[in-house]
Amino acid sequence: MTLRNSTAAYEALKDRFNRLSALGGAQAVLHWDRATMMPEGGAAARAEQQAVLSLIAHETLTAPDTAELLAEAEDAASSLGEWDRANLAEMVRIHAHATATPADLVMRLSRQKSETEMIWRRARAANDYASLAPALDKLISLVREQAAAKAEALGLSPYDALLDSYDPGRRASDIDRLFAELEAFLPDLLREVMEHQASEAAPLVPEGPFPVARQEELGREVMRLMGFDFAHGRLDVSHHPFTGGVPDDSRITTRYDEADFTESLMAVIHETGHSLYERGLPAEWRGQPVGRARGMTIHESQSLLYEMQAARTEGFIAFLTPHFRAAFGGNGPAWEVDNILRHYRKVRPSLIRVQADEVTYPLHVMLRYRLERAMIAGDLEARDLPAAWNDGMQSLLGITPPDDASGCMQDIHWPSGSFGYFPTYTLGALAAAQLFAAAKQAEPGLEAALGQGDFAPLTRFVREKVHGIGARMTPDEIILHATGEPLGVSAFRRHINRRYLSK
Amino acid sequence: MTLRNSTAAYEALKDRFNRLSALGGAQAVLHWDRATMMPEGGAAARAEQQAVLSLIAHETLTAPDTAELLAEAEDAASSLGEWDRANLAEMVRIHAHATATPADLVMRLSRQKSETEMIWRRARAANDYASLAPALDKLISLVREQAAAKAEALGLSPYDALLDSYDPGRRASDIDRLFAELEAFLPDLLREVMEHQASEAAPLVPEGPFPVARQEELGREVMRLMGFDFAHGRLDVSHHPFTGGVPDDSRITTRYDEADFTESLMAVIHETGHSLYERGLPAEWRGQPVGRARGMTIHESQSLLYEMQAARTEGFIAFLTPHFRAAFGGNGPAWEVDNILRHYRKVRPSLIRVQADEVTYPLHVMLRYRLERAMIAGDLEARDLPAAWNDGMQSLLGITPPDDASGCMQDIHWPSGSFGYFPTYTLGALAAAQLFAAAKQAEPGLEAALGQGDFAPLTRFVREKVHGIGARMTPDEIILHATGEPLGVSAFRRHINRRYLSK
Repeated sequence: MTLRNSTAAYEALKDRFNRLSALGGAQAVLHWDRATMMPEGGAAARAEQQAVLSLIAHETLTAPDTAELLAEAEDAASSLGEWDRANLAEMVRIHAHATATPADLVMRLSRQKSETEMIWRRARAANDYASLAPALDKLISLVREQAAAKAEALGLSPYDALLDSYDPGRRASDIDRLFAELEAFLPDLLREVMEHQASEAAPLVPEGPFPVARQEELGREVMRLMGFDFAHGRLDVSHHPFTGGVPDDSRITTRYDEADFTESLMAVIHETGHSLYERGLPAEWRGQPVGRARGMTIHESQSLLYEMQAARTEGFIAFLTPHFRAAFGGNGPAWEVDNILRHYRKVRPSLIRVQADEVTYPLHVMLRYRLERAMIAGDLEARDLPAAWNDGMQSLLGITPPDDASGCMQDIHWPSGSFGYFPTYTLGALAAAQLFAAAKQAEPGLEAALGQGDFAPLTRFVREKVHGIGARMTPDEIILHATGEPLGVSAFRRHINRRYLSK
Repeated sequence: MTLRNSTAAYEALKDRFNRLSALGGAQAVLHWDRATMMPEGGAAARAEQQAVLSLIAHETLTAPDTAELLAEAEDAASSLGEWDRANLAEMVRIHAHATATPADLVMRLSRQKSETEMIWRRARAANDYASLAPALDKLISLVREQAAAKAEALGLSPYDALLDSYDPGRRASDIDRLFAELEAFLPDLLREVMEHQASEAAPLVPEGPFPVARQEELGREVMRLMGFDFAHGRLDVSHHPFTGGVPDDSRITTRYDEADFTESLMAVIHETGHSLYERGLPAEWRGQPVGRARGMTIHESQSLLYEMQAARTEGFIAFLTPHFRAAFGGNGPAWEVDNILRHYRKVRPSLIRVQADEVTYPLHVMLRYRLERAMIAGDLEARDLPAAWNDGMQSLLGITPPDDASGCMQDIHWPSGSFGYFPTYTLGALAAAQLFAAAKQAEPGLEAALGQGDFAPLTRFVREKVHGIGARMTPDEIILHATGEPLGVSAFRRHINRRYLSK
């Protein structure tokens, strides 16, 4: 081992993490391309490319001298400034996660994820769960293996170890508590909202067809209003909307339905919320761990802040509606502001999570949370998933999917190996409600601005309180810092009450 | 050093080269994306990603134990079969090239290439050579440094060392000889052809506009005729047409001009020729050096075989013309077969290489060959390039570009660091003429089939004689094997005479 001073060790680590960041960026391009551009026949070659990049990143991170450098740098951490200390702490955390998974398992996981995801695309289109089950079964086994390895190394339970990689510091016990609080009022609240809405005329559905080109144009207009910079990003189409790429080249996707423009537009707003977060991360820390987004709960809070909180306000819908009429030549009662607002706020149990309203959405997440915990614990196997899914849907939402395509095959997460991710959607919704309330207090003109199609006050608030923080704080610290309260259910509950029961 | 048997060393090398192939595939996606999809603001992050992947590939290839493994495997090469011996020989060759360039130079080159190429895009659009010159100057210095390092290690001259990386075994002395043979007849032949064409009415130019969507559709139709499989590839748009991706996911590009559909279509045919070569490489050797394309001369021979030799035959143009009329609603004398044929065979000195006819094209290449040899030798600096370019155009083609955008900034090669590449275009044209003559002998029905839009006999010939060989032979051996003659100018000369002076 070469002798060097503590700063040299930390600087060497920064170089190494810059390299890892570039590798991660390359992986993001491969992933985006696979979902948007790649012809199906390229799947095997792409799986190999992704597996090799994962392996190289893993080798780089877990190289023996990384541990030495970390130890040296930590010994002298007191000489570092606040950001650098936080950066070093993140390096330690990321290193601990990486060293917990053996290299060959990283490779096998990467290949199995690619393969299972490609099979899922076909299986979902053909509503053929039987063709997916064997690959999913193999993938679940590998994820269990990884969870066990991480649990051992990190001193966590297997499921907590997976959770921690998506939402640093998050434990199943937090989720159990918050979900129990939600369950204590949500079913009753749902019933109340549905009764309230049943007393009104059902919203009229604007009649299509709505040409894809027009929908896309409208999506781009709204993205520009939100501050999306097309010199630093793109909008494309994929099976499942997502935000990919890197902060300075943000790739968002949506999907279009010619019979309904309202969904695709909200998906665009949702993904633009994610993208603004990435773009707003502290630019001077690009390439370093502390400059990254702080986990998926905070990420989802940013997308829902724009999609659910801001874009569904009365003011913004009133602003948007004339644009809808102009884009699609719509007129008549279905195209009135009040009707569009009620359309966007319609609450009812439904099959598809990504189309669910914000009142029933947590129930979709609770179902997935229960099932994936059972799968990781070894209490549920791939072959038994459809039945367990349908039972859960019946007990939580009172409906049963007519087929697996609209049941347990609807989401990309499990086929792509993401277990421990789903709960962050609902934690993000709780955080979004809390952040929006705080933003309105800090920026008294926020709601009036939204009525003018102006997102600047909202974005100003989150740029400072959330985006610019990077990974300098934990997710819970960010919420506390930005809202003055720990993450909880009360802002969400107030929000639902006010929006759905106030008149 | 661990003792192991010779096969173990070779197997370990195969694993390493599989990894390098996956890294190369990832780099191909990043490169394709940058040219077709990436917003300009993503350039800096992409340059970093590409530089890091280049560096990792270089580190992997030049790791100390690679040399050990190669030595061990070579000691026992006699126990290997023919393909494996050729594979090992390619490993040795690739390793020698890689170890010749120091790692930090690889990194600096990759960054400077990305930066210069991005600057070139803007500079060419703005016709502003002054903004390109400083970056190009830096890049040329780095390429000189690389050429010197390779020359030293490989025992070649600096320019030969660059040439060898694009066209294995090729030396400037071969090019000097072949180009001298060409120059001995080409200027006179060009004059004769122009006089001959001047005695006929000038071809009429079909009048547009030709909508991009129609051109694209036509391009796809012709790609399908040629056997392009869209389950294993795509067609997109870039500044400069190219073939990227990997054999099982081939990404070709073209560019469209609404005033002229004929060029874009031929670019598509050209790139599809490249793509067919990649797809036809021996599938059982995917990921191994011997399974790769055998250098740029052979590559270009495949694109020109389809574009210049096959697609400009009277039979194929007669087949295509009704499709043109249908696609663009054309009628009248400009849309007659004979006129389209004369349009596609019009010969005259012009400014832009990629738009040049096959008679003047070698003169464009000779200019670039002279200039880049001078640049590598240190006899020509970036700031003096425009003047040298314009002088050369005047002396070789008798015309002077009105601006640098249509002069020395027209090609992407130098701004992206490719020196030693240009000569392969003309060597490829010679090879294509020789291969087409041989294919017609081997497949007597070939020309009649082209008249039916059927490329099968031609493709059958090259699949067996060229594509399927991979890198098992040298470029010159492939030509000899496929045509019975060494690479020369006589088939090209006969072809030009027959096509342009026979009636």
